[in-house]
Amino acid sequence: MFRTQTCGALRIADVNKEVTLAGWVQTVRKFGSITFVDLRDRYGITQLLFSEALNDQLDANPLGREFVLQVKGTVSERSNKNKNIPTGDIEILVDAFTILNKSITPPFTIQDDTDGGDDLRMKYRYLDLRRNAVKKNLELRYAVNRATRDYLHQQGFMDIETPFLIKSTPEGARDFVVPSRMNPGEFYALPQSPQTFKQLLMVSGYDRYYQIVKCFRDEDLRADRQPEFTQIDCEMSFVEQEDILNMFENLIKYIFKTVKDINYTETVERMSWEEAMWQYGNDKPDTRFGMQLLNLKFPQYVFTQKQSNAHLIDGAGFGVFDSAETVIAIAVPGCSEYSRKQTDELTEWVKRPQIGMKGLVFIKYNTDGTFKSSVDKFYNEAQLKAIAAAAQAQPGDLILILAGPEERTRKAVSELRLEMGKRLELRKDNEFKLLWVLDFPLFEYAEDENRWVARHHPFTAPKPGDIETMISNDPKIENASDYLKHPYAHIKANAYDMVLNGNEIGGGSIRIYQKELQQKMFEALGMDAQEQQHKFGFLLGAFEYGAPPHGGIAFGFDRLCAILGGSESIRDFIAFPKNNSGRDVMLDAPAGIDDKQLNELQIQLNPQ
Amino acid sequence: MFRTQTCGALRIADVNKEVTLAGWVQTVRKFGSITFVDLRDRYGITQLLFSEALNDQLDANPLGREFVLQVKGTVSERSNKNKNIPTGDIEILVDAFTILNKSITPPFTIQDDTDGGDDLRMKYRYLDLRRNAVKKNLELRYAVNRATRDYLHQQGFMDIETPFLIKSTPEGARDFVVPSRMNPGEFYALPQSPQTFKQLLMVSGYDRYYQIVKCFRDEDLRADRQPEFTQIDCEMSFVEQEDILNMFENLIKYIFKTVKDINYTETVERMSWEEAMWQYGNDKPDTRFGMQLLNLKFPQYVFTQKQSNAHLIDGAGFGVFDSAETVIAIAVPGCSEYSRKQTDELTEWVKRPQIGMKGLVFIKYNTDGTFKSSVDKFYNEAQLKAIAAAAQAQPGDLILILAGPEERTRKAVSELRLEMGKRLELRKDNEFKLLWVLDFPLFEYAEDENRWVARHHPFTAPKPGDIETMISNDPKIENASDYLKHPYAHIKANAYDMVLNGNEIGGGSIRIYQKELQQKMFEALGMDAQEQQHKFGFLLGAFEYGAPPHGGIAFGFDRLCAILGGSESIRDFIAFPKNNSGRDVMLDAPAGIDDKQLNELQIQLNPQ
Repeated sequence: MFRTQTCGALRIADVNKEVTLAGWVQTVRKFGSITFVDLRDRYGITQLLFSEALNDQLDANPLGREFVLQVKGTVSERSNKNKNIPTGDIEILVDAFTILNKSITPPFTIQDDTDGGDDLRMKYRYLDLRRNAVKKNLELRYAVNRATRDYLHQQGFMDIETPFLIKSTPEGARDFVVPSRMNPGEFYALPQSPQTFKQLLMVSGYDRYYQIVKCFRDEDLRADRQPEFTQIDCEMSFVEQEDILNMFENLIKYIFKTVKDINYTETVERMSWEEAMWQYGNDKPDTRFGMQLLNLKFPQYVFTQKQSNAHLIDGAGFGVFDSAETVIAIAVPGCSEYSRKQTDELTEWVKRPQIGMKGLVFIKYNTDGTFKSSVDKFYNEAQLKAIAAAAQAQPGDLILILAGPEERTRKAVSELRLEMGKRLELRKDNEFKLLWVLDFPLFEYAEDENRWVARHHPFTAPKPGDIETMISNDPKIENASDYLKHPYAHIKANAYDMVLNGNEIGGGSIRIYQKELQQKMFEALGMDAQEQQHKFGFLLGAFEYGAPPHGGIAFGFDRLCAILGGSESIRDFIAFPKNNSGRDVMLDAPAGIDDKQLNELQIQLNPQ
Repeated sequence: MFRTQTCGALRIADVNKEVTLAGWVQTVRKFGSITFVDLRDRYGITQLLFSEALNDQLDANPLGREFVLQVKGTVSERSNKNKNIPTGDIEILVDAFTILNKSITPPFTIQDDTDGGDDLRMKYRYLDLRRNAVKKNLELRYAVNRATRDYLHQQGFMDIETPFLIKSTPEGARDFVVPSRMNPGEFYALPQSPQTFKQLLMVSGYDRYYQIVKCFRDEDLRADRQPEFTQIDCEMSFVEQEDILNMFENLIKYIFKTVKDINYTETVERMSWEEAMWQYGNDKPDTRFGMQLLNLKFPQYVFTQKQSNAHLIDGAGFGVFDSAETVIAIAVPGCSEYSRKQTDELTEWVKRPQIGMKGLVFIKYNTDGTFKSSVDKFYNEAQLKAIAAAAQAQPGDLILILAGPEERTRKAVSELRLEMGKRLELRKDNEFKLLWVLDFPLFEYAEDENRWVARHHPFTAPKPGDIETMISNDPKIENASDYLKHPYAHIKANAYDMVLNGNEIGGGSIRIYQKELQQKMFEALGMDAQEQQHKFGFLLGAFEYGAPPHGGIAFGFDRLCAILGGSESIRDFIAFPKNNSGRDVMLDAPAGIDDKQLNELQIQLNPQ
């Protein structure tokens, strides 16, 4: 061992001990004939004191930032204690030192507030990883990993490894593929998830399976997506939705408690997909704050249980509302005194291309109970008051109304709500709010391909009451634009998403386990019998030999860690992330391979 | 929940409880008007009793093997108890049952002694996984996984995930590659191990890293190799070889204790590579038994410390020995009374093509102290006695001698020793013997390529005393056949292998952490500066910024589990293994992909 203790270990009780430490030089300060060095390792920082007697040696072997240093010396009480670090009461009086390795000047400072930009820190990731801020993220990640395994172990789950070299069955996202040298012309695929394997394990009787596992999707990388990402992947047999919800909200509560010391004792709220869309315009609402939507027109899709409040705006002769497909309001608390400049800025905000609205209507519900709006020409005070009441506004609130095409307007209001929540500091990093979103539609209709697609994936079961509807109807549609009239549009999935602070952190479903129903699902998605057999013959086969009822869930591990760490970016929680072009700029990968490799694989490049 | 208890839970104390069970029908037996069913799940088997009252329902819904069944009933004491299973004291008097799913007749029986052949069981792996024998293997694997994580966590190791989509740097084994769609013409590689990443993590200061991680090698599959396999991958900073040996022999001892309840208290034996080769002809000797080799000629390679005993056979005029490069004997205990038929059979055994020897010389050291040999014509009793003494033979032993080319003969004797150990039942499945093999040569010479290759890998450090030899000599060799005269041939590596019962279960080394030494190593392997920079520029770069002394080890997780489970085959310990052609016969993967996928990747097939 190059050390007797770490740089985070020594305390006042260790005074007079002979110790050997090793670590990195964080700083070197010279005061007269004495040199102070902060020595750093994974566990902390310890101050070293080099007395005058070592000056010749120091002159001959000057120390620099990030040098790897070993020192022998005696623990001594410090005169000027540093209360900010656990080792701040002591320092090491150095007797002898060895430079284990030198360092050239790092391209950026190894500090929390580094001067390195994103690209530089990606290229020198091994230096960025030295920074305390990044180290804390990886430590948190490991703590979440460990807590997850402990909880699932206690609950009888078994970690069972599933293969990485599998078969390409593109459905949804693109597969990464791997040419096989031993089987020329054929390819493996890297798994987008172990979905079918965990289902096979249920067929095999391993009734509680889990894995913390890498998955792969060859998608164009939107911000903060990675081509390889990590899932907490779980599956259970002989369960219904209620069992899964209980098991896994308790997992997240266990992680909260273990990793963050948060007692999340309240029951996790549950909300149907319809309710989430109706109240928040979003299937992963941030429920840390209210500001729910007031739908002033009736959405065309599946909001069968709701009233539109259209009477509050109809007949006033306001063309913008009358002609709009959708009109939605939110009441922003305490903002009735926004200036013209502020409302103009909000109008500009919703007109940005990412939001894409044409304008913004506002109603100020003044603290004295009067109203002032941008539509005073069309609506009198009583009408404005009725809208405010329906929006659950209080005196002092600012009501914002967007109007336009349904989907765009709904998204815009949802974004506007989140933005106002942020500005009003209603979305606190240290507040955690869980939510189950339930009862998703089983299908979506891809009008361009003129076929149904599975909203979750093709293995998700419909609600028990909807199985008959699925079996007994022909999925075909004559006229694509009529798809909402087809019974399939109203089938609900036995599926659930877990939302944390407005982020989907996990999702899953009760699975289909009957061969006939699975075939019907594949058929609905446009697969003929031959394609079904080619892609999923093994699963249909397995369902013939006694498949149990089962269901599961997968959590996005990177995202979960990022949220727990109070960050928006998953990249900060991955040791070696890729950039937005899918490149590892440190390795400079991907890269060309040589002709010998191509020839062995019996493939060649085909630039287009 | 479809059940209140599992099929392994109920005991005599549960009698009269109302329970609901779910599982698979193992057997159906009818006795008169009563039907007995053994219901199976992951946790055990429970007997169900269907009384006459249910006969009509059973007739309408006949039960078959592997049907998924849910029953409600009352726990009752059995009259004829089954002492072989934990639930054998009770049975369930069934009140009602539901067939949750049916099964067609399985292609083989779901029993320990199944009638299914290898191919059939691979194709229907989801059924094979139901067999108790396979389930026990996966449970053992999970227990080893869990014990490993617990021990390493206690020791301060952090699980840090390293990337799967990396850069191809073929050196040693072939990489699997992954074409990049976003970077056309470029490829990722799948990691053969996280070697360079874990070294970078050491540079970053994460001084105790581990991962249980999939690795990939595109090699022609010898028996019992898999293209994807799992490693326990570990690395530590500020350590010397001794620290690593202690840390990881204690890991294996912890696994022994936790998983197998074996107290492995003795110190793990250590042996140099030279000693292992000299005594056992093998760098992973099975030390559960003796039968060490007697080298009767001096091996040409690095056995610098040994005497050859050549005087024992020289000058007798026996041409076979005189002309042979190598002559090696072993003394097989208690076999002096082997019949002519038995010695003939052994002679045939060594003549098999896998062994490739021309013949076998034997000396019977009779219990009365006399000798009888196949070379009586050339050696008198005194000479035979001297050979026997040198071979440490006792009266009653059979001495076997092989002669021929050095490497083939050494391997043959090693195989013969293992075979005789097996026949004499000296290699017991339930006996575990660990061994460290140390001081490997750093380099081997590839005569065909006329260059040095790294015996372990290019990141392994030489012994501290050999660094100067490595730095100060030009690695080039004028005449390839003279390579043994080059100083590099005698450089020892700071490397270690852990051997368990004759299997290498792990190996590692202290790493090079100085840029100049790493460059010298790359140069020795024939890489010019440009190639070094292209392949390993990131590592050489990292070594410029304060790399600490570090070292590590990786264990073959599949192999370790197999040996602990008393099996020769790793395939039995992998949930979804591939066959010897690298195929997953259940999925039918790899497979062709469609032209759209090929075009997106800008590659095409190039059959040769």
